[in-house]
Amino acid sequence: MSSRIRALPDGTGEDPAAEDSRWPELLKIAATTFAERGYRSTSLQDIADRFGVFKGSLYHYIRSKEDLLYEIMRGVLSDSVDDLRRHAGGEGDALERLRSVLRGHVRHLIDNLAETTVVLHEFGQLSEQRRRSLPVDEFHRTFTALIAQGQREGTVSPDLVPELAALALLGSVNHIYRWYRPGGGRSPDEIADQFATLLLRGLAHPNVPGSSIDGDEESA
Amino acid sequence: MSSRIRALPDGTGEDPAAEDSRWPELLKIAATTFAERGYRSTSLQDIADRFGVFKGSLYHYIRSKEDLLYEIMRGVLSDSVDDLRRHAGGEGDALERLRSVLRGHVRHLIDNLAETTVVLHEFGQLSEQRRRSLPVDEFHRTFTALIAQGQREGTVSPDLVPELAALALLGSVNHIYRWYRPGGGRSPDEIADQFATLLLRGLAHPNVPGSSIDGDEESA
Repeated sequence: MSSRIRALPDGTGEDPAAEDSRWPELLKIAATTFAERGYRSTSLQDIADRFGVFKGSLYHYIRSKEDLLYEIMRGVLSDSVDDLRRHAGGEGDALERLRSVLRGHVRHLIDNLAETTVVLHEFGQLSEQRRRSLPVDEFHRTFTALIAQGQREGTVSPDLVPELAALALLGSVNHIYRWYRPGGGRSPDEIADQFATLLLRGLAHPNVPGSSIDGDEESA
Repeated sequence: MSSRIRALPDGTGEDPAAEDSRWPELLKIAATTFAERGYRSTSLQDIADRFGVFKGSLYHYIRSKEDLLYEIMRGVLSDSVDDLRRHAGGEGDALERLRSVLRGHVRHLIDNLAETTVVLHEFGQLSEQRRRSLPVDEFHRTFTALIAQGQREGTVSPDLVPELAALALLGSVNHIYRWYRPGGGRSPDEIADQFATLLLRGLAHPNVPGSSIDGDEESA
């Protein structure tokens, strides 16, 4: 996320925070605090305390608590959408790419647990204008397109409605933020494998048992 | 939910609201308001305004805003767990019962959208004691047990980890509260069918194509 600092989105000029090496640290602290306590229960004073500065010093970085919320979401969504596009546009048929998309999405969610929690739990706290500026719809659109393409390729069952199947997949994966805890006994890779296996088998055309459904590790 | 009014859980005696025919209406208004605006952004004054009483009159029913939150959750979870037990303990093999559980869970969620939204989005706002008193773990436990039984019966793929598969199913279904809107073009039955079909095929043992996977309507 640290590589994504840019000018503030309202176009009022450069972001003074971009030059400050503590900006990524501030975003991480804010994300962790919002994820733990909830956005509305967290004050800028709480964040200043954890960051080790006076509250007034935060205005060097942001103008409001909502700026922090927005920058957390913008950073993690930008990374996640990059991942999504890379996996969706990769090699293989639609089902193979969907497998790669699902595994990537699970890994990214777990690697950015606090930020993802903030996106999934606090999205409604942003102003409507800021909500609209974030690429949250791209996940459902891409999942739906890949499922529909799989149907045209004959690997996805024709009786599924792509828009609904995409919501089933996304819900399953996004829900992970609610129960995953580091050190909880299941590795991120095991979770990614299990979810991708179950969900791709669920999509698959019953007459196409194939390597693209169960992945490389099982097709030997 | 209206049939589930009982003495308040702290044992201080009968609930005066139990005799009042407007208690279900108050719970419905509170659930709708919490679901729309968020629990923390809603005041008792907001609820009194919608209910058409002075704020002080609410203390005839409850002692705090959290009482309302708790009673909403207790009511809808009690109904939902009743459904869960009925479907899980019904006729048929584990996969058939899981189909019935999934379809029932989707229907119940959609029929109680405001209350479910409150449970899934505001659970962390309850005191720890109250959180512990609610049967939220029973869903994961029951899903896991049915999946494991399906493995013993040979209808569920042996390479799935029941606890993780149960979380995939629950996430997929619970996520519905985030996108379902009445009149959105998809009927509750269509959603329930699509989700159950996809998820049960995902669980199924590849060598067992059977009526219990695709349901009665497709097995003829």
